[in-house]
Amino acid sequence: MSKIKKNALICLMGDDRRYIVKAKGEFSTNNGQIDLGALAGKEYGIKAKTHLGKEFTVIEPRLVDLRPKRLPQIVMPKDIGLIIGHTGLGKKDIVVEAGTGSGVMTMALANIAKKVHTYEIREDFFKVATENLKGMKNVDMKNKDVCKGIEEKDIDVVILDMGAPENAIDEAYKALKPGGFLVVYSPVIEQIDRVYSKLGKFTSIRTIEGIQRDWDIGNNKTRPRTRMLGHTAFLTFARRM
Amino acid sequence: MSKIKKNALICLMGDDRRYIVKAKGEFSTNNGQIDLGALAGKEYGIKAKTHLGKEFTVIEPRLVDLRPKRLPQIVMPKDIGLIIGHTGLGKKDIVVEAGTGSGVMTMALANIAKKVHTYEIREDFFKVATENLKGMKNVDMKNKDVCKGIEEKDIDVVILDMGAPENAIDEAYKALKPGGFLVVYSPVIEQIDRVYSKLGKFTSIRTIEGIQRDWDIGNNKTRPRTRMLGHTAFLTFARRM
Amino acid sequence: MSKIKKNALICLMGDDRRYIVKAKGEFSTNNGQIDLGALAGKEYGIKAKTHLGKEFTVIEPRLVDLRPKRLPQIVMPKDIGLIIGHTGLGKKDIVVEAGTGSGVMTMALANIAKKVHTYEIREDFFKVATENLKGMKNVDMKNKDVCKGIEEKDIDVVILDMGAPENAIDEAYKALKPGGFLVVYSPVIEQIDRVYSKLGKFTSIRTIEGIQRDWDIGNNKTRPRTRMLGHTAFLTFARRM
Amino acid sequence: MSKIKKNALICLMGDDRRYIVKAKGEFSTNNGQIDLGALAGKEYGIKAKTHLGKEFTVIEPRLVDLRPKRLPQIVMPKDIGLIIGHTGLGKKDIVVEAGTGSGVMTMALANIAKKVHTYEIREDFFKVATENLKGMKNVDMKNKDVCKGIEEKDIDVVILDMGAPENAIDEAYKALKPGGFLVVYSPVIEQIDRVYSKLGKFTSIRTIEGIQRDWDIGNNKTRPRTRMLGHTAFLTFARRM
Repeated sequence: MSKIKKNALICLMGDDRRYIVKAKGEFSTNNGQIDLGALAGKEYGIKAKTHLGKEFTVIEPRLVDLRPKRLPQIVMPKDIGLIIGHTGLGKKDIVVEAGTGSGVMTMALANIAKKVHTYEIREDFFKVATENLKGMKNVDMKNKDVCKGIEEKDIDVVILDMGAPENAIDEAYKALKPGGFLVVYSPVIEQIDRVYSKLGKFTSIRTIEGIQRDWDIGNNKTRPRTRMLGHTAFLTFARRM
Repeated sequence: MSKIKKNALICLMGDDRRYIVKAKGEFSTNNGQIDLGALAGKEYGIKAKTHLGKEFTVIEPRLVDLRPKRLPQIVMPKDIGLIIGHTGLGKKDIVVEAGTGSGVMTMALANIAKKVHTYEIREDFFKVATENLKGMKNVDMKNKDVCKGIEEKDIDVVILDMGAPENAIDEAYKALKPGGFLVVYSPVIEQIDRVYSKLGKFTSIRTIEGIQRDWDIGNNKTRPRTRMLGHTAFLTFARRM
Repeated sequence: MSKIKKNALICLMGDDRRYIVKAKGEFSTNNGQIDLGALAGKEYGIKAKTHLGKEFTVIEPRLVDLRPKRLPQIVMPKDIGLIIGHTGLGKKDIVVEAGTGSGVMTMALANIAKKVHTYEIREDFFKVATENLKGMKNVDMKNKDVCKGIEEKDIDVVILDMGAPENAIDEAYKALKPGGFLVVYSPVIEQIDRVYSKLGKFTSIRTIEGIQRDWDIGNNKTRPRTRMLGHTAFLTFARRM
Repeated sequence: MSKIKKNALICLMGDDRRYIVKAKGEFSTNNGQIDLGALAGKEYGIKAKTHLGKEFTVIEPRLVDLRPKRLPQIVMPKDIGLIIGHTGLGKKDIVVEAGTGSGVMTMALANIAKKVHTYEIREDFFKVATENLKGMKNVDMKNKDVCKGIEEKDIDVVILDMGAPENAIDEAYKALKPGGFLVVYSPVIEQIDRVYSKLGKFTSIRTIEGIQRDWDIGNNKTRPRTRMLGHTAFLTFARRM
């Protein structure tokens, strides 16, 4: 296990909640105060107690522990997972994404890919994403309209999560490597229709939808949860010929 | 674009089917013959024609182009995707998997993770996987019973896809880093019950199920496909405290 | 079209909402007042206007227009539909139901079946159902424990929507006609297990689950609704041999 | 229990399969022969044995026991159930249906409704349905194009399961009672769009989709079935104002 550096971003993992904090100063949890400065130099995995005796495990934050500032439309793990699963996205891949939005999908892609180039036309979104993606060295952010040109070539995967993605498909084609994947994230059916009309030079075209059910298990209450997210988006995959 | 090396594994991508072949000798497609030897030294992305005029794009194979030898139970992209999406699996992670099976999930994990240690108790499966995983440098295969011990420490993610996973959970706990994820792939409800009874030292316990719908789009035929895979497995996630 | 009788229960159907009222006196809608007394003697289907000009169509209430007093657990149309669709419930059938609950399912059954005998052990529920089922001539209500005996014989369909339905199955068996259907409405998996252990003298045993998706259509917004009811119950069907 | 009449249609219900036969002569099951003529005059519910000792319970056939001659497109119990559940279809209702097809939905509707008027434009389908619906006294069959006119008035529910249902909606409107339900069964999204463009004089417009999962229960194998029907149709409901 590695050691906790002073000021490092750490995660306090309790039995019911987690906090993302810096290893310095005092911190007030819901169950008392912790001296975070005292953690520097210790090994990850140690237990830290509040003055009220509540125990937390100090861990190196994983992607899922981060708490990015969120904009209304967030891409869910189920959809990020389908994109990765069906494109075979891996650590050798160079990815182009548009739009960046809050950067939540960018973070997930950058956690895996060699490099992520991400385009965002709106300045307000660009600012939010800049904050969320601070320190991610393999992310290249651009406050530009992807429809006016993708500067990169030989791209492995292009992901479009934006209004009117049909207008970005010719640029995506030019940027993609032969065999590379185009992925379009479409909340509504009409958008998919417009996208399909532009896919003449692509092959292996496919549209899927992922539905996630959460379950309660055991204690005589084994059942799917009552509330469920009914829909986020349809995912269209196509490969550049 | 990089150049095609002699004998390299290449993918011939046509408008309706793909072939995985080596760049040497002659090859018979469904639509005539191609001289693959002549492709060596050319750039990826070139078009190759059969003697009957059928055109293929020559691409570097992606994970999804490979055709591993398959055993009956195959983990689907939707489930691999959920595992990656919900653990935030990334390129810095060290993963332990059991059992290897045919190695299909191992391939997907190794495409992303820094290192994958995979355990398989059955010798016949181990042999199939050995063939499928040939050349993957960040995979460490073991023909061992994971319940008798996991040799690695400070593991980020342990994935159990095996009979009686409840017997491997104590070992998984010892191998995992604090904050690391345990994932159990369970086809049936009863298995989840037995797994939950062993999760006392874990937190953030959660069971989900992913359902994938394929769609036909356009041409007055926009609708979900008639045939659908109704179930593969439930996925249980838990984090070591 | 038949004529509106004085004091009859009528439904005012507007373009956005419906009211269930008696044909007498004045009534205040959200958009002004209507003289309901003046409707008596007119034909169903006439338009009634409020003093503010808002128009309503006066219709004979259908089952779906009624507004029974509801208790927390309500059986949904999707589940009532599956019960009817899979048992082939029809107008010649004699049905036994337990428990009555608020009587919502009883109303749906009585709308179709020749006769419904319904058992409810709790006195508070029995009172609510008594009010909701007032005037339904083919309903026979009993404030009794169905596990202590079903008085009827030669029943076509027995529906159990109650705690511990496994304790009522022997009585259901005795009440059912050969070929008659037992239906058990089970929110959780554990209950189904206990029910199956009592089905030795039944055949054609089957458990299903119905999931309903609501769609938005057109206006560039064709998509499943974001919010969805993830689960109500599993339905088990079995036939008395 | 009523008595078995000579020549009556009866159902032999075994532990694994059912036969629909007439109560006369000899009959060969998969497990030996039964003398059906000897059953006349006995009570329903008696056990009949083949000469090889296989036992069957003799029951009055329910709707679900009938074996109509089937055409390719069959309406499933889940969809019939949703139609009944969401319209509150009951025994006082007069229903119009188009097209008849093989008559499978007609049978289900006639099992509940007071009267069913069913239109079928194709003569070959009309012949199949005529055979399937023989003896159902509350069914009125017409080998006519529903778009050219519905002869009935004051109808409670009109169900359209046909190509180009948008062309029948004006006729449906004229036939329906105020407050009556229009139901359109649409396999594809584009059809729903065309239907919506004709619904100006309707209210409470709603489109839903029902998904049915079958489960295996118990024996350490509790799980949804692997194979699943992914899609049949979308159901659109609207009420005449």
